[in-house]
Amino acid sequence: MASSLLRLPSLLAPAPALLCRGGRRLYAAPSAAVARLSAAATSTGASAAAPAQAEGARGGDREGQVTPRSADFNAWYTDVIAAAELADYGPVRGTMVIRPYGYAIWEAIQDYLNVKFKETGHSNMYFPQFIPYSFIEKEASHVEGFSPELALVTIGGGKELEEKLVVRPTSETIVNHMFTKWIQSYRDLPLMINQWANVTRWEMRTKPFIRTLEFLWQEGHTAHATLEEAEEEAMQMIDVYTKFSYEEAAIPVIPGRKSKVETFAGANRTYTIEAMMGDRKALQAGTSHNLGQNFSRAFETQFMDENGQLEHVWQTSWAISTRFVGGIIMTHGDDAGLMLPPRIAPIQVVIVPIWKKGDEKGVVMEAVASVQNTLKEAGIRVKVDDSELRTPGWKFNHYEMKGVPIRIEIGPRDVKNRSVVISRRDVPGKQGKEFGVSMEPSIMVDHIKGRLEEIQASLLQKAITFRDSNIVDVSSYGELKEAIAEGKWARGPWSASDADELKVKEETSATIRCFPFEQPEGTKKCFMTGNPADEVAIFAKSY
Amino acid sequence: MASSLLRLPSLLAPAPALLCRGGRRLYAAPSAAVARLSAAATSTGASAAAPAQAEGARGGDREGQVTPRSADFNAWYTDVIAAAELADYGPVRGTMVIRPYGYAIWEAIQDYLNVKFKETGHSNMYFPQFIPYSFIEKEASHVEGFSPELALVTIGGGKELEEKLVVRPTSETIVNHMFTKWIQSYRDLPLMINQWANVTRWEMRTKPFIRTLEFLWQEGHTAHATLEEAEEEAMQMIDVYTKFSYEEAAIPVIPGRKSKVETFAGANRTYTIEAMMGDRKALQAGTSHNLGQNFSRAFETQFMDENGQLEHVWQTSWAISTRFVGGIIMTHGDDAGLMLPPRIAPIQVVIVPIWKKGDEKGVVMEAVASVQNTLKEAGIRVKVDDSELRTPGWKFNHYEMKGVPIRIEIGPRDVKNRSVVISRRDVPGKQGKEFGVSMEPSIMVDHIKGRLEEIQASLLQKAITFRDSNIVDVSSYGELKEAIAEGKWARGPWSASDADELKVKEETSATIRCFPFEQPEGTKKCFMTGNPADEVAIFAKSY
Repeated sequence: MASSLLRLPSLLAPAPALLCRGGRRLYAAPSAAVARLSAAATSTGASAAAPAQAEGARGGDREGQVTPRSADFNAWYTDVIAAAELADYGPVRGTMVIRPYGYAIWEAIQDYLNVKFKETGHSNMYFPQFIPYSFIEKEASHVEGFSPELALVTIGGGKELEEKLVVRPTSETIVNHMFTKWIQSYRDLPLMINQWANVTRWEMRTKPFIRTLEFLWQEGHTAHATLEEAEEEAMQMIDVYTKFSYEEAAIPVIPGRKSKVETFAGANRTYTIEAMMGDRKALQAGTSHNLGQNFSRAFETQFMDENGQLEHVWQTSWAISTRFVGGIIMTHGDDAGLMLPPRIAPIQVVIVPIWKKGDEKGVVMEAVASVQNTLKEAGIRVKVDDSELRTPGWKFNHYEMKGVPIRIEIGPRDVKNRSVVISRRDVPGKQGKEFGVSMEPSIMVDHIKGRLEEIQASLLQKAITFRDSNIVDVSSYGELKEAIAEGKWARGPWSASDADELKVKEETSATIRCFPFEQPEGTKKCFMTGNPADEVAIFAKSY
Repeated sequence: MASSLLRLPSLLAPAPALLCRGGRRLYAAPSAAVARLSAAATSTGASAAAPAQAEGARGGDREGQVTPRSADFNAWYTDVIAAAELADYGPVRGTMVIRPYGYAIWEAIQDYLNVKFKETGHSNMYFPQFIPYSFIEKEASHVEGFSPELALVTIGGGKELEEKLVVRPTSETIVNHMFTKWIQSYRDLPLMINQWANVTRWEMRTKPFIRTLEFLWQEGHTAHATLEEAEEEAMQMIDVYTKFSYEEAAIPVIPGRKSKVETFAGANRTYTIEAMMGDRKALQAGTSHNLGQNFSRAFETQFMDENGQLEHVWQTSWAISTRFVGGIIMTHGDDAGLMLPPRIAPIQVVIVPIWKKGDEKGVVMEAVASVQNTLKEAGIRVKVDDSELRTPGWKFNHYEMKGVPIRIEIGPRDVKNRSVVISRRDVPGKQGKEFGVSMEPSIMVDHIKGRLEEIQASLLQKAITFRDSNIVDVSSYGELKEAIAEGKWARGPWSASDADELKVKEETSATIRCFPFEQPEGTKKCFMTGNPADEVAIFAKSY
């Protein structure tokens, strides 16, 4: 599976010049920008609807300001979600309203994956969300895994229902019920579908985007004639997710296989992509399951093979959800707010016009419109904020909070010089500013496109550096405990029992995130038992 | 509102040559194609999963065949849905599984509307589907309209809930709850959003696509500072729907205003687009509501205006659903199956290779690949069916059933002549065939694009002719009764009471579909009371 990494040479090798200019800023002190935002934001609807305030946790004088990331990562996270207008709490405990800016990030994820799913032979379709309760009970480990989290409809059209209906927590059961109708012969295979849908899991501890009572996702479901084909499909899809994470979201996930303990309820094997958040906790950002024949046996999904024999189909399922948006926030954000990788940023460039005297407005706005058109025609997602209700300073902070990769300022002097001022979101202060960038369309478009690519590469490189400096190779349980206590990930050879795995969880709160596909060479000895081990596992605390 | 019609000159005036060649075929006798399909379809998964059979209504010997449209319109409809693999029944009564081909039509609808919504200033977002029961009760007419149709979640995470949760039947209540948090000042207005979502209504009599327990839709919600702005918005969106219907779906809907009796539960005014189906029943295909201040008063959604006065916002909501797919089937389909307007057809051109001897295969497939690439590069949605499990004859019928607008046949003789054979789905038999169409890329692309446009225009023109020949102008209640008894729509001046309207419904089963925006000139006398009337209304039986 190193192949997914090898395909990304341009992103893994960012321009050397860039690395000198940028530098890490993950734990920077609260910027002056935030303080200024605080003063100006009083009248925005956004701040009044902040989750922090909906909970009554923070007072009025800090409206719009975010807690420094280094001071309290969790408070920072919910503050950013409020201040960048990504989401809000719904009226029912644990539910979330995804606001337009947060939803636009989800749409960028959808736009990319939807094309990849179709390219790899899948069709979209839609299954009902109400599942007869009896379906859930058919696959033994599935019911065990999901029954504590179910929402049940018991009344419909004013009447008590004869059979309770489950609001889908995932669709394997209803998918298999339908597949059983549609599949007769090997000629009907492979059957490869996907749906974009909402799902409901009655979670007790919730967190916006990361774990909510209802969330949005895509769920792929496939049926194949052989185990080998199903395994290839499950691997293909975790590879699609890995590529997306690196190339689009600039998140250097580690793809691998889940331990038996952590495998999906109903799967033979679960593949996962694990991402390191800014607080070094792990986030399971996507999964792909080889379901074997578990569901096809439970639902009698059979086909006639080429020799006229009836066989159960081999299946996969795979999913990425709105949780990924939380992963983007917690990977790239800093004290000034969100920081979006250009490829999935709803706004890649924001233009802020600057003028004082009335007679300056005309020429500035004319230049702004011209630059906007030039960039738009070049396929760059550009927004002009020409509101006269806000100062340029307020706007600077607002779009930093929203993580817009590049800001362009245009004032009367710039117009005279036929040039603009450019600021990079990922490089703070003067270092991130460029003066006198020519307005000449071909020069400016090349310049902006180049900078967007540099930012994309830089975000990924920073995240890789951060990740790699926080993974410790361990060869004893003591070393693991030490690494986990420091908040790091521990990687070491593992061939111990499920009971040992649960002991580690109890004693350290860390779980096996995955057996990574990329394994070190050489013979290995289990750090827990001293027995020979085939693979290293990665342990970490997780969301 | 005639403006929406005036914008479509090219579609309303199809090439005269075309009209001579095509001709109506809406009530044609069952074609030989269907009989042939029947014989070949036995082994497809599709036929076994046919709704008709799921209900046990039809036997095995007619597998894959559709009931003639003229014999039984309702049976024809469900047969086509099964045979064209558009949808299937879900396991819970009244639910529907939307299969890939049906979903692809919905995606075409989404792709068009999503762009138009954004162009008109709306952002997508997502609201939770679980609504506290108390919300539904806040707006008096809303609760009256929706409470009989609610699905209620009463158990979550294994526990009885303190407050029952409504699975959204529509989102006005939860939207207003959130708008109240986000809107403080006139500067926060207008607030214009949309969501693509599933909704649940506990319907007793269901029909695939047309009325299902759960369906997919988009629901737009906006808040404005003035009544005038809200009214303008409601009209703008019904205009977007009208334009979509004419230009993309080739359905000549009649836009107009609903009567008070038929207005949405919670709206001041409901605008609608009404479509005439092939059996001449009306289908409400989209609606746009001016909600006035009904929900803003119920939820205290207020803003500070420019003079510092607190005011309730003025609102709209508007929706189109997967019901529209049913409208497309019932407008254009014929005895051979579905007939799709090219602009929303998932497959615009299907290429069927024809060869007998093994040595012919190579040259034919090479030409097929070349034609496929040429069309694909020209932006035409093209599919090659090179399966060797099916005969060309089976494929002809299969893609006719699926309503693919154009079929291209390529055999050894065609390859020799550097030409192809083209068949139009909308013109049956030899009349719809063209031989010797050059394979030369630029000639072929122009030819195919031209034919697709002709088909698009022809489908619309046929539907307009059909509609207009089935609307009767009436000037007495007797005339209305006669028209309705003949299965037609009745149009006549109306200023009578709600009680009279309900009497018409009881006695004739017809309801006021709308007061059309396009009104005849001159003074009018109500056909029921003889009193002066400002407008004509359209009465019809409906789905």
